[in-house]
Amino acid sequence: MRDLRQSAVVGVSGYTGLELARVLLRHPAIRKPVFYLRETDGAKCLAEVFPQFRGFGEGPVKPLSAEAIVASDAGVVFLATPHEASCELAPALVAAGLRVIDLSGAFRFSSGETFSAWYKQPAAPAALLEKAVYGLPELYAAEIPSASLVANPGCYATSVILALRPLVYSGWIAADRGIVCDCKSGASGAGKELRRDLQFVEVDENFRAYALFSHRHTPEILEHAGVSPEQLMFSTHLLPLARGILSSIYVWLDAPREAAEIETLYRKFYAGRPMVRVSPAGQLPELQHVAHTNFCDIGFALDAAGRRLVVVSCLDNLGKGAAGQAVQNYNHILGIKEHTGLQ
Amino acid sequence: MRDLRQSAVVGVSGYTGLELARVLLRHPAIRKPVFYLRETDGAKCLAEVFPQFRGFGEGPVKPLSAEAIVASDAGVVFLATPHEASCELAPALVAAGLRVIDLSGAFRFSSGETFSAWYKQPAAPAALLEKAVYGLPELYAAEIPSASLVANPGCYATSVILALRPLVYSGWIAADRGIVCDCKSGASGAGKELRRDLQFVEVDENFRAYALFSHRHTPEILEHAGVSPEQLMFSTHLLPLARGILSSIYVWLDAPREAAEIETLYRKFYAGRPMVRVSPAGQLPELQHVAHTNFCDIGFALDAAGRRLVVVSCLDNLGKGAAGQAVQNYNHILGIKEHTGLQ
Amino acid sequence: MRDLRQSAVVGVSGYTGLELARVLLRHPAIRKPVFYLRETDGAKCLAEVFPQFRGFGEGPVKPLSAEAIVASDAGVVFLATPHEASCELAPALVAAGLRVIDLSGAFRFSSGETFSAWYKQPAAPAALLEKAVYGLPELYAAEIPSASLVANPGCYATSVILALRPLVYSGWIAADRGIVCDCKSGASGAGKELRRDLQFVEVDENFRAYALFSHRHTPEILEHAGVSPEQLMFSTHLLPLARGILSSIYVWLDAPREAAEIETLYRKFYAGRPMVRVSPAGQLPELQHVAHTNFCDIGFALDAAGRRLVVVSCLDNLGKGAAGQAVQNYNHILGIKEHTGLQ
Amino acid sequence: MRDLRQSAVVGVSGYTGLELARVLLRHPAIRKPVFYLRETDGAKCLAEVFPQFRGFGEGPVKPLSAEAIVASDAGVVFLATPHEASCELAPALVAAGLRVIDLSGAFRFSSGETFSAWYKQPAAPAALLEKAVYGLPELYAAEIPSASLVANPGCYATSVILALRPLVYSGWIAADRGIVCDCKSGASGAGKELRRDLQFVEVDENFRAYALFSHRHTPEILEHAGVSPEQLMFSTHLLPLARGILSSIYVWLDAPREAAEIETLYRKFYAGRPMVRVSPAGQLPELQHVAHTNFCDIGFALDAAGRRLVVVSCLDNLGKGAAGQAVQNYNHILGIKEHTGLQ
Repeated sequence: MRDLRQSAVVGVSGYTGLELARVLLRHPAIRKPVFYLRETDGAKCLAEVFPQFRGFGEGPVKPLSAEAIVASDAGVVFLATPHEASCELAPALVAAGLRVIDLSGAFRFSSGETFSAWYKQPAAPAALLEKAVYGLPELYAAEIPSASLVANPGCYATSVILALRPLVYSGWIAADRGIVCDCKSGASGAGKELRRDLQFVEVDENFRAYALFSHRHTPEILEHAGVSPEQLMFSTHLLPLARGILSSIYVWLDAPREAAEIETLYRKFYAGRPMVRVSPAGQLPELQHVAHTNFCDIGFALDAAGRRLVVVSCLDNLGKGAAGQAVQNYNHILGIKEHTGLQ
Repeated sequence: MRDLRQSAVVGVSGYTGLELARVLLRHPAIRKPVFYLRETDGAKCLAEVFPQFRGFGEGPVKPLSAEAIVASDAGVVFLATPHEASCELAPALVAAGLRVIDLSGAFRFSSGETFSAWYKQPAAPAALLEKAVYGLPELYAAEIPSASLVANPGCYATSVILALRPLVYSGWIAADRGIVCDCKSGASGAGKELRRDLQFVEVDENFRAYALFSHRHTPEILEHAGVSPEQLMFSTHLLPLARGILSSIYVWLDAPREAAEIETLYRKFYAGRPMVRVSPAGQLPELQHVAHTNFCDIGFALDAAGRRLVVVSCLDNLGKGAAGQAVQNYNHILGIKEHTGLQ
Repeated sequence: MRDLRQSAVVGVSGYTGLELARVLLRHPAIRKPVFYLRETDGAKCLAEVFPQFRGFGEGPVKPLSAEAIVASDAGVVFLATPHEASCELAPALVAAGLRVIDLSGAFRFSSGETFSAWYKQPAAPAALLEKAVYGLPELYAAEIPSASLVANPGCYATSVILALRPLVYSGWIAADRGIVCDCKSGASGAGKELRRDLQFVEVDENFRAYALFSHRHTPEILEHAGVSPEQLMFSTHLLPLARGILSSIYVWLDAPREAAEIETLYRKFYAGRPMVRVSPAGQLPELQHVAHTNFCDIGFALDAAGRRLVVVSCLDNLGKGAAGQAVQNYNHILGIKEHTGLQ
Repeated sequence: MRDLRQSAVVGVSGYTGLELARVLLRHPAIRKPVFYLRETDGAKCLAEVFPQFRGFGEGPVKPLSAEAIVASDAGVVFLATPHEASCELAPALVAAGLRVIDLSGAFRFSSGETFSAWYKQPAAPAALLEKAVYGLPELYAAEIPSASLVANPGCYATSVILALRPLVYSGWIAADRGIVCDCKSGASGAGKELRRDLQFVEVDENFRAYALFSHRHTPEILEHAGVSPEQLMFSTHLLPLARGILSSIYVWLDAPREAAEIETLYRKFYAGRPMVRVSPAGQLPELQHVAHTNFCDIGFALDAAGRRLVVVSCLDNLGKGAAGQAVQNYNHILGIKEHTGLQ
């Protein structure tokens, strides 16, 4: 008998996985998750593998196998794994009736072709892609509770879509001008892979753009913010800090607007959504206010003529951009308040 | 008898002034500059005031007075002072036949009204504004050698104008789309004023936008890059690092272009200009490569359709963005190679 | 009727106060604290003053007055104030039957002379000093629950005392050799005062020693670790990071010891104390593992001869070094598990 | 015919090698060095391999072979290579009459046994070890000019030896107390090897001790500072910054001393040595003042009783701790001022 309050976690060793463990171990409404590791080296408990978890309470560790997860009473499984591993593991888990919350890019697109075009890899089976719900609860709260497979969004994508969607749906954006999304992320967003360009000496006191016109979060933005490829410029940069994404989004409006109208647009759109905080007109959000939280803060500046608008959106790439959002999705599946365990 | 190889430096105590001292004390083609301080506290030599200069050779220190500078044999004076102080000091110095290189915003605009509108202060006398040459040697090398007053450009403005000017003059930019300049600077650019938001704890692991639609470098960009206010969005952000500006500049092209065409455009424009380094197509510049140098590095990325273009420009805000550029202007006045003492 | 579950907080605007607010607002076993501010500017709620608290639940804000606190039903008051303010506020609050948890140095010494010698200020009345209990729960858990005044320890002092006390009490330290405590702290430990040497540009990529032989935490260490002034060298350094203290402590042993003996000494001493984590022999603690927690992690290295010992102790200066420890003391007063709300 | 003004550089790709290239390319008294790379990938010039060197002037690049270096007219060769490579290359180069300046640990010890005990590797041939001079010019300036093999010291060792040697030789240190050297280094000191613990996210906002009782620079300190192993505790820590070492050194004096005596001791010892700057009593050096320089700054604090002394020494681990010191040694070989090209 599956228990939704019992979760299994695969891929705890990455930065996202560690954050997920931290949040789940302190979650007040669930049982202790079981952590499945590729290599346990005889460890029985998470703290033996990661000393920072000593004193957090026991997080049992088991050798990874889809069979073991299926055989357990877990009702939910988190896959904090690379695309390939997610593709491999998800089918059996879904088939066995587990709810899968996948943090990779494998199930984020309804079209397998889109996935393959951007990830240069074979896509998951179409049947599974069809089942998957894009796990952005501020947009798709109605579908997540019953989804067998939740595709947790990309960190940049979350930041941009939440900022852009209300504006796009308002119809206020001048269609003939472009939309620019200039995004900056801390280094934990790049994952834990050993790379020369992520060594301390290469990132410290440095700043650089990367993956221009080729970042994999692009198709998520196009699909869920509702903009066309020709209209959009989306860029990513590496900040010399560990956690956080700040996106500066530039649009021209089709007619002059007041700051109060813009603020109201966002407030209405996110009414009842505790994890999005809209800044009062005249205030801009900053990274420190969202680091180590699950909030996405959105603010803006409008020029005196009311035609040029900059929207600034920020979040913690490991929080609302990954692990926190995954737990927010979990809360929707559990049918409890979406911010439980996330404050 | 004025000696151009003898300089006077006012305002050495700010970050720009300290960098200026560092460069001038090592310059191989000049005499030791004399440093004029508001408060000398009895010091005779720069190293008594700033211990980091011990071992750099004697930099004589004197109490600040325009009269003392006029009475000396100095041929050139650097004003690394706030606008107000520059306005106050410059007239007498120019009148006495000294060449003034001013690092404030006081003389950057031909129109006093532009200055007052953006700086919320009275402008310098029109006669002096007319004399001033905008000290961006890559654009105005012909006028700088004979100028009695050189207005050293703003750091953001230098970074944006050098990146945008070749494109604007090419006529390739689609006029109906906008131009976005998303700029990020290290904290030394904000100067040495004591401010809560510049305390270490407030900047470290943080990132934020500021001065949207109100940054004082805006009118420099409009005038010297040649773009219209409605077309441009220029934003500034504070990076958690000490030195460097990186500007990401977004334009839509009016017709498809090849990457090679873009590279050639820049290479031709900056041929013979050693302080601008154009990155080969496919490479992007990064802050570490320009920190502690006087280079401005420019690179770009073009989408597959050849229509959307991102230009990335970076420099050291204390180097090419301030003190280094001032010395580059000095070299033009001296009639020597413009990068002397700047490598 | 005073309610111990209702607290008042004075001095929320410093870094310690902000952390205290963060912990108390999420504490599962208490009522919402009331925040008393010197200047409320009409704010009714903490989030109006500090936007980072939006979404944390209402933290009511009131104008600071000892009378208002006395008149409320609060049973406990936190003073996150400078020494002078604590001296001024504490007498009336204690007299009114409130339990005072003071985070300044004002009540840390049984002798007023010791305070005045190190703080160069008049001490609090002797009657009050006598009442005060040094709020290091790992040592004084028996006295804290009934104390009317708890003097929350200094951050460096906590780190050093917890590391040194077991060793000193073991009698294993060679008396004729010295004891060196080389401590390093992040910048939030210096508080929020506007100081040139705490500006970002002065701390970033920098490291320096300060307050050698004059740091105010020295007498706390002498008294509670039990060492003599001639024997001890205690130094403090400023790290280019926001949160955390790491102390490297050097002692020579009077006879050869095994690593297992040292580990056992610490494990026994801190048995049943969840907020001190002893690292297994061969592992050393590091700052990242304690940042944003209330843990003090202690590890060590012993030379092959078993005579030279380095003990490494680390904690978050805003957590176990200040606000977290204050809440740990609060938990003792409440008679609940000492780590409630601190994980 | 060998030309001492012509150098060859092996191992330019590490951080030390890059710094060496930067210094040598700007050195005013030598010919352009030739850079020998294991993999040239067809590059003819250093800037093709490392874009940050564009505009620095041509630094010719050649495929690495000892034969090619021997066949050239180079009089000096820098080996910025690992121990193994230095052991392999040095014999042929020395035999061919080149002066070798080696930056590895391979030739730092007169005893091959000492090397093997600490490096866990076979030592270089005894004949070569005997030839080698320890390249600390402040101590061994008399021997360096004629040395066929200069063993450039370790970065920590330079920092500690320069601070400790004057004191040890004064005979003022109390013999029965210990000497503690608590050293902290930036991440570039660990080299460019790909290691998990040197990734940005692992170093940023972190601080930790490492290699306690096992650091390879220990035997250099013992030999050249003149202290006994039982007396010394030497520890190393990793700072979250790129460049710089600060060592805090603790000694007890055998009799009370005045601060002026200590200052005089250091000033006399380093008279005529421009690269060591002694801070006036009451001032302490800090990392920022030595970053990007070849200075070693030394200051101290003495307690009121004149018995407990802390000496603080700092330098740039890539400058005076490695590449800068190598060039200082080169200047001694050339018979020119030792700070040429190092300011």
